[in-house]
Amino acid sequence: MRIAQLAERTNVSPASIKFYVREGLLPPGERIGPNQTAYSDEHEARLRLIKALIEVGGLTVDAARSVLESMQAAGSLGEVLGTAQRVASIEVQASEESLRRVREEVERQGWVIDPDNPGLKQCAAVFDAYLALGRSDLARLDIYAAASLAIAEVDLDLVDAADADRQVAAHTVVVATALGDKLLAGLRRITQDHVSRKRPQNQLPARPCDAKPPAPARNSQTNKR
Amino acid sequence: MRIAQLAERTNVSPASIKFYVREGLLPPGERIGPNQTAYSDEHEARLRLIKALIEVGGLTVDAARSVLESMQAAGSLGEVLGTAQRVASIEVQASEESLRRVREEVERQGWVIDPDNPGLKQCAAVFDAYLALGRSDLARLDIYAAASLAIAEVDLDLVDAADADRQVAAHTVVVATALGDKLLAGLRRITQDHVSRKRPQNQLPARPCDAKPPAPARNSQTNKR
Repeated sequence: MRIAQLAERTNVSPASIKFYVREGLLPPGERIGPNQTAYSDEHEARLRLIKALIEVGGLTVDAARSVLESMQAAGSLGEVLGTAQRVASIEVQASEESLRRVREEVERQGWVIDPDNPGLKQCAAVFDAYLALGRSDLARLDIYAAASLAIAEVDLDLVDAADADRQVAAHTVVVATALGDKLLAGLRRITQDHVSRKRPQNQLPARPCDAKPPAPARNSQTNKR
Repeated sequence: MRIAQLAERTNVSPASIKFYVREGLLPPGERIGPNQTAYSDEHEARLRLIKALIEVGGLTVDAARSVLESMQAAGSLGEVLGTAQRVASIEVQASEESLRRVREEVERQGWVIDPDNPGLKQCAAVFDAYLALGRSDLARLDIYAAASLAIAEVDLDLVDAADADRQVAAHTVVVATALGDKLLAGLRRITQDHVSRKRPQNQLPARPCDAKPPAPARNSQTNKR
């Protein structure tokens, strides 16, 4: 197909397509004449992945390139997961003290991980921020940890399901890592909203939902007989 | 205290402090002489919050300003939560079809929410990306949903615990919303790593952890007697 058709199918502008080719994210199309280039279905699939990583996953062009390269390299799925995790992590500073606390927490949970896992630094940065704000809200850490473990299990189930074909499995790892955070953040906004409405002591937002709020708790009608 | 001391205590440069004052995030200090300005403990606390929102939470200056303004406005905690959720969400496009699917999913879960909750669009954008990639990996959605609900419950517990003082409660909502996503993303990287090592069929990353890997499963030794 020509660039115009590729652009239309993927909803990525021809200028952006050319940019991704220049930046080495998308292989160049095949020259079929002066000023004419043909793109294949593989180009289309690759472009959809690039778009998802950058627009939804929030990756930079450099980060997306690293992930795509690791997908195609001969390394293990563990290496693909490591790269996807690293580039999809924010660059943060964290104190040694908080890093030590996170490592202790990981040990307490019985988790065995790479000592350079980028999640350690990210969690430590959050600990630092809580401490700087005069907080020690980490009581909820156990529930966050249990929820996170349940999610990691399904994330890895996906990888196992796809492992017949290493290329498909690598693709799955990348997509699940880059987009899973966003899915979870979206669900957290939805469930916070839901939970805040279930609790009568919380004031509700000004704009109520179309749906009926839950009926008030029965036991608020006291036993007058 | 003087600006140099404020800078040292919070690890924010004097130039950035002046920038936050110009941008309306931090109230100006008190003029105590020509070229001399005094800052209070309230300035210090506010500056730590600004730093956490921007550096760890990843908020833009405009987003941080909106959150800080909503904290100080007379609105309900639900409104503070709504603002924090909105500004901490990525700006995404989503198809009507995927939005409808997310709404159906919310209804199926029995969740009652604001029809404009920003999580709806964020989840729909992830659905769109999966569809564009030829995937229907949404089998795991139930587990993500259950995990997210558990997290929202503890998030709101925090708010309830703090609700004696509305200003403290608002502060808690803002911090939990902006930093909770990052904590969860960090934990997800850690637990994915842990789970991938528990599963013998997954190749492990090249650089192993100091700790011993778990022993191989017993039932791989078949019943030769």
